[in-house]
Amino acid sequence: MKNKQLAPGMHDKLFKRAQSVYQIEMRVSNFLMASGFNRIDTPMIEYAGVFEDELDNHNYHLFDKHGDLLVVRPDVTQSIARVVATTKVNLPTKFSYSGKVFRHHDELKGLQNERMQAGIEIIGFDAAVAIAEALDLAKSSLTLAGVKAYRIELSHAGILQTIFAGFDVGQVALLANLIKHKSITGLTEFVKQNPSEFDAFLIHLPRLFGAAENVLAEAEKLVTNPDILAALVEIETLSRDLSHATVDLGMLAKKDYYTGVMFRVFSDKVPYAFLSGGRYDKLFERFDAGAVSAVGWALDVDAVYEEIRQDIVFDGGDT
Amino acid sequence: MKNKQLAPGMHDKLFKRAQSVYQIEMRVSNFLMASGFNRIDTPMIEYAGVFEDELDNHNYHLFDKHGDLLVVRPDVTQSIARVVATTKVNLPTKFSYSGKVFRHHDELKGLQNERMQAGIEIIGFDAAVAIAEALDLAKSSLTLAGVKAYRIELSHAGILQTIFAGFDVGQVALLANLIKHKSITGLTEFVKQNPSEFDAFLIHLPRLFGAAENVLAEAEKLVTNPDILAALVEIETLSRDLSHATVDLGMLAKKDYYTGVMFRVFSDKVPYAFLSGGRYDKLFERFDAGAVSAVGWALDVDAVYEEIRQDIVFDGGDT
Repeated sequence: MKNKQLAPGMHDKLFKRAQSVYQIEMRVSNFLMASGFNRIDTPMIEYAGVFEDELDNHNYHLFDKHGDLLVVRPDVTQSIARVVATTKVNLPTKFSYSGKVFRHHDELKGLQNERMQAGIEIIGFDAAVAIAEALDLAKSSLTLAGVKAYRIELSHAGILQTIFAGFDVGQVALLANLIKHKSITGLTEFVKQNPSEFDAFLIHLPRLFGAAENVLAEAEKLVTNPDILAALVEIETLSRDLSHATVDLGMLAKKDYYTGVMFRVFSDKVPYAFLSGGRYDKLFERFDAGAVSAVGWALDVDAVYEEIRQDIVFDGGDT
Repeated sequence: MKNKQLAPGMHDKLFKRAQSVYQIEMRVSNFLMASGFNRIDTPMIEYAGVFEDELDNHNYHLFDKHGDLLVVRPDVTQSIARVVATTKVNLPTKFSYSGKVFRHHDELKGLQNERMQAGIEIIGFDAAVAIAEALDLAKSSLTLAGVKAYRIELSHAGILQTIFAGFDVGQVALLANLIKHKSITGLTEFVKQNPSEFDAFLIHLPRLFGAAENVLAEAEKLVTNPDILAALVEIETLSRDLSHATVDLGMLAKKDYYTGVMFRVFSDKVPYAFLSGGRYDKLFERFDAGAVSAVGWALDVDAVYEEIRQDIVFDGGDT
């Protein structure tokens, strides 16, 4: 049996990296607890059904002694939703957590399959208040973690959900792929073959990202659908209170339980979001519980370390 | 798929338990880093060969995308040994870590299969100095964690290794089982059928536990083997410096890489050791590296919480 190598996508952290990642996680976790969030620690290994309706081949699967399918968790949010839906936790409530999550990535990309997250869930509160608090805590956490320059990218899951509702499953899959790749020619071709009230919006969607004011002003001219207009107003209201906000109306929901505002935090150094979150009232439906207002985010502590490593002075030995 | 239950042996931690376990882990980890230990964070998922020479059916196994067998780590010590044996880490060195470890337990016993550990490894230092430092840090960590009453039970892996060396594999398995169950009649029968220089020692072994002074004095009368006598002297020297020390000469090494002094910390409340460690110079042989002095311990943070939970005042909500 192999015993001298690391499994694909796994990494050892030593010295500066190990200590810094731990300190970032600890600083954020302590701040969240001090801010009134209840610490929660769900298991790293759960039934696959907690996270998946269909088998997701990016997850780490295993069988328990009874033959039931388990998963090494890809996410903490869904475990917390399971707890809220199946136990007598009093709502509203606020949870904070930190811990590892696991996903198989393409080996050629060299991404880490194990990542340290710290995050929050605000459950059962008025959504607008919860979103404002979540964004406020995200900014404070980023500052505490040592992140200096970043931008918050806003979007709204309701926009694409409203559009997708008018197409069948195959069309939605194609459309999502074209949006993901910002394919103007592909979208132009799509609306030619599948005309709808969203044609103008879809053709322009690949360009609808950047400074909030400009993007929202342009988007409002392209749609008449009241749900999408309401979503745009919601983004506009939030962006006014954020000094680092941009908008990307082509942002696809990472999980289909998102229902409202979505946000991701980027910098110039790290090629992916190091904080992401949003509103996902539908999360509890998977566990046969009714819709409850839920807003949360997860900070990718390893990505934060990549962002700030050059600023960290470490005198503890090898780096 | 099941999605509303916890997998066997898995538990949610909320409120007082979640916050307390986190704070104990953090307090101990920070103390160890401040004491000059280098933080290390090895992956939760590794090739099974890092931990097992033969398949261990108490481990959580899974296959990676190439069909190689992986394990959700049962232990951190062996991952650190892999790092030391396969990378250019300068020795001597001291590592500290914290994180989850996973083992399948008998479901009927209701034990947690996921446990939070915090621990140290002191590698390449003079063994006597390293053992003294490890025990000293164990005591400070227990105090910091809030544990008030405990006893440190000492033993030495060399004692049973010396005895086992004279028997074949089948006899060793039988003997180990009789020792584990402190079976005086079984051991009496065993030495009748398999006489050796250790007959008197083996028959008395089930009673050779308790106050260090008494047990060691009795043991010294029962053996003439110089290796065992040297091991008894080593235990005696250590026990003199420890105010809470007892001895259990029938303590079986939890892992076969132990080579010298072993210690476990118990209290009256928790039915299993909440700290265990010792000397294991042979650890690196599994990774084709030479013997290096290595001393370490792991604190079971969940067990510590069980020990002190009644002393913890928590005003954060539900308990």
